[in-house]
Amino acid sequence: MNAVIDRLRRTTDLIVGEDDLRERLESGRPLRIKYGVDCTAPDLHLGHAVNLWMMRQLQDLGHRVVFLLGDLTTRVGDPTGRSETRPILTPEQIDANAASFLEQVSLVLRTDPDVFEVRRNSEWYDAMPVAELLSLFAQVTQAQLMSRDMFRERVAAGREIAVHELVYPVLQGYDSFAMQSDLTIVGSDQLFNEQLGRHFQQRLGAPPQVVITTTITPGIDGRAKQSKSLNNYIGLTDSPRDKFGKVMSIPDSLVEAYARVYTELPLDTVAALADATGPAARDAKLRLAAAVVTRYHGAGIAKTELDAFRHTFSERSEPDEMPEVVVTGEVATAFDLLRAVRPNDSNSALRRLLQQGAVTINGVRMDDPAAAVELDAGVVLKSGARTWHRITRK
Amino acid sequence: MNAVIDRLRRTTDLIVGEDDLRERLESGRPLRIKYGVDCTAPDLHLGHAVNLWMMRQLQDLGHRVVFLLGDLTTRVGDPTGRSETRPILTPEQIDANAASFLEQVSLVLRTDPDVFEVRRNSEWYDAMPVAELLSLFAQVTQAQLMSRDMFRERVAAGREIAVHELVYPVLQGYDSFAMQSDLTIVGSDQLFNEQLGRHFQQRLGAPPQVVITTTITPGIDGRAKQSKSLNNYIGLTDSPRDKFGKVMSIPDSLVEAYARVYTELPLDTVAALADATGPAARDAKLRLAAAVVTRYHGAGIAKTELDAFRHTFSERSEPDEMPEVVVTGEVATAFDLLRAVRPNDSNSALRRLLQQGAVTINGVRMDDPAAAVELDAGVVLKSGARTWHRITRK
Repeated sequence: MNAVIDRLRRTTDLIVGEDDLRERLESGRPLRIKYGVDCTAPDLHLGHAVNLWMMRQLQDLGHRVVFLLGDLTTRVGDPTGRSETRPILTPEQIDANAASFLEQVSLVLRTDPDVFEVRRNSEWYDAMPVAELLSLFAQVTQAQLMSRDMFRERVAAGREIAVHELVYPVLQGYDSFAMQSDLTIVGSDQLFNEQLGRHFQQRLGAPPQVVITTTITPGIDGRAKQSKSLNNYIGLTDSPRDKFGKVMSIPDSLVEAYARVYTELPLDTVAALADATGPAARDAKLRLAAAVVTRYHGAGIAKTELDAFRHTFSERSEPDEMPEVVVTGEVATAFDLLRAVRPNDSNSALRRLLQQGAVTINGVRMDDPAAAVELDAGVVLKSGARTWHRITRK
Repeated sequence: MNAVIDRLRRTTDLIVGEDDLRERLESGRPLRIKYGVDCTAPDLHLGHAVNLWMMRQLQDLGHRVVFLLGDLTTRVGDPTGRSETRPILTPEQIDANAASFLEQVSLVLRTDPDVFEVRRNSEWYDAMPVAELLSLFAQVTQAQLMSRDMFRERVAAGREIAVHELVYPVLQGYDSFAMQSDLTIVGSDQLFNEQLGRHFQQRLGAPPQVVITTTITPGIDGRAKQSKSLNNYIGLTDSPRDKFGKVMSIPDSLVEAYARVYTELPLDTVAALADATGPAARDAKLRLAAAVVTRYHGAGIAKTELDAFRHTFSERSEPDEMPEVVVTGEVATAFDLLRAVRPNDSNSALRRLLQQGAVTINGVRMDDPAAAVELDAGVVLKSGARTWHRITRK
C-alpha cells in the first residue's frame, strides 16, 4: 500500500493519520472518501482538480467518493477566506449549483454508484434537534475555534466574526462523523475544519478520518492562488484551446510545479522540462500544455491544439477563421482602413501601429498611413501580433 | 405612571429603555413580563424575591408575569458564574425542579391565569430547525459575546469557555422575542443576556423589551451575595422563626439596606432604623425582622416571632423546651455535672465556662468547679449564653 500512498504524495502537502491510512488501505475495505463542497456557483479549476485526481486514483482501486453537498452549511455561509457575509441562496439556486458542480466533477471523477455517492448535509441537520447541536457545541471550546488561522487574521485586521461563522467548523467537522468519512483530501485552508472532524469522530466513538492536504500551486500569473476574480486560473470547463493557451502563458518558473502537480508526466520528464532553456524552454512548455490538455481531453485533441497553437502563434500564419468587418464609408488609405476596423483606438495609436510595422494587408507590411488601398478583392488586415480581420466592402 | 416607576426604583439598579417603559405603562395594555429561570434545583432567597415583589406590584396593576422555564437551556447549561460545566438533568429532574420553583414563586407572585402564564423554551427550540438557529447566530458577533464580563473573567483566569456556553446568551436573548417580552426584571449578572434579547427583538422586527436590573444586597454575613453554599441567605421557605433569627444576626451596617430592599417600610422609617444607636439599634433590628416576617407570613406571625425572640434571647429567661440529659455516673460537683452534659468539651474549656460565670444551676451562678450539687429535684443547667439542659438522675 506504500505505492498508493507514494503516488498520492506527489501532490500531498500533509497527511494527518498516515498510519491509519496505511492500515485502512491494507484492510481491503472500500474507504469512504469525503468530498465536501458548499453549494455556491462552482467554477472548478486545475487547483481543485488536483484533489479530484487523487480521489480518482482511489476510485480506480475500488474506494468510494462521497460527494457531500453542504446545502445546509451553504445556507449558513462558510466564512473561509471571506471578509463579507455571503448572500443567502434560494433552494433553487442551490440545486442548480449542485447540478453544475456534479457536471464539472464528473470531468475527473467516476460517477458510477459503485464508487460514487451524493449526499447533502441537510439530511442530518434538518433532522437534528437544536439541543443536539448544542451538545456538539459542548465538545469544543471558544478558544479552539478562535485558534483557526483565518479567524486570528480577521481579529488582527479588526474585522468581525459572526457567530454562525465561528461555529461553521463544528458543522463541517460533524459532517465527517455523520457520513462516516475515512479520508478527506482538501486544501490546506480546510485543515482546521477537517481536524475538527477527527475530534468529533473520536468524541462520538468513531474512528477519525485521515486528512490529506494538497499542494497549492500559483495561478497562471505565477503569483496568487487561482481564482475567478483574479482571472488567473485554468477552468475545468475551459475549452482545450483555452487550456492550452493559458498553460503557454505561464512564467517559465512555473513549468516544474505545473508539470508535477497538473500532469502525470514521469518525474524525470518533469525535471527535464524544468531544466530546459532557450528554444528548448518553449518546447518544454508546449509539451506541458499538451500533457494538461491530454489529461482532460485525450491525446488526439491535445495534438490538434498543439498544431493549432504552432500554426497560429509560432509560425505567425493566418488563422483559418477570423472576424469579418464590413466597411461602408470612404476608405482610400491604409490609415482609413485601420480606423474603420479599430474605431475605438485613437489616431495616434493607429499611426503608431503602422509606423511599428505591425500592420499588414494581405501579408504586405503597410507602414505608410497614406498608402492607397483597394478593397475590390478579398482583403485580410493584420494589426498587431495576433489580430486579423477579413474586410468586405459593402 | 411615574408613581409606578418610582415605586420600582426603590429596588432598581438600572432601567434600560425607561422611556419605553413609561409609554407602555401609559398605553393601558397589560405588559408581558419575562421571568426566565433555569430548571436546576431552586432555593429562592430574599435576593430573588426582590425581583418577584416588583413583578407582584405590576401584577396587582393587571400586568402578566410569563414564567419561562428554560428547560431547553437547562439541558444545555447556563455558564453564568460557573467555572464548571453543569451536570445534565433528566426530564424528570427538570419537571420536579420546575414544580418546586412554581411552589416557591407562588409565595410572592399571584398565579391566577389572568396575570400568570407558564411557558417552556423547549416549545420553540424543539420546533426550530438548525438552520434557523444558525441564522440567529448570524445576527451577533463572536466579539459581542466575548465582551460579556463573565467570559472576559474566565479568559483572564485561563479557564475555558465551551461553545455551548458562548452561545447561551443568544438562546436567552431569543427567548424574549419568542415570548414577546415587554419587560424583564433581573439581577445585573443577566443584563448582558437580556440586552441581547433587545437586540434580537429589534433585528426580528419586534419592540425591544425593557430591562430592569435590581439592587444586589449582601447576605446575612454582610459580605458575599446570598448563596446556598455560603449558607448566608434567608430562604423564602425558611420558617418564620429562622427568617426572624437570621435578620437579627445581620451586622448593624446592613439594617438600612435590608429595610429598604427587603421590606416596604416607609423610607423615612428606614432612615430612622438605620440611624438608631445603642439599645435603640437592637429595637430597630427587631422591627426590621418583624417587617421581613410580616411580608411573607403576615403581621400575626411576625408578632409571635417577635415575642418568642424577646422571650428566648432578649430576656435571657428559660425557654419552654430544652434538651433533657439523663445523668448516670457519679456527679458530686458542678464540674462533674458540666462534664456529664458537655462530654465533648475539654476540661479546661469547661473550667473557663464556670470561671466566666456562664454557668447557672436553677438560675444560680456556679463559678466554683468544686461546688457540690444535689440532683434529687429537677435541675436546669445553663452553660453559655443560649444553652439550657434539663437534668434527670437515673
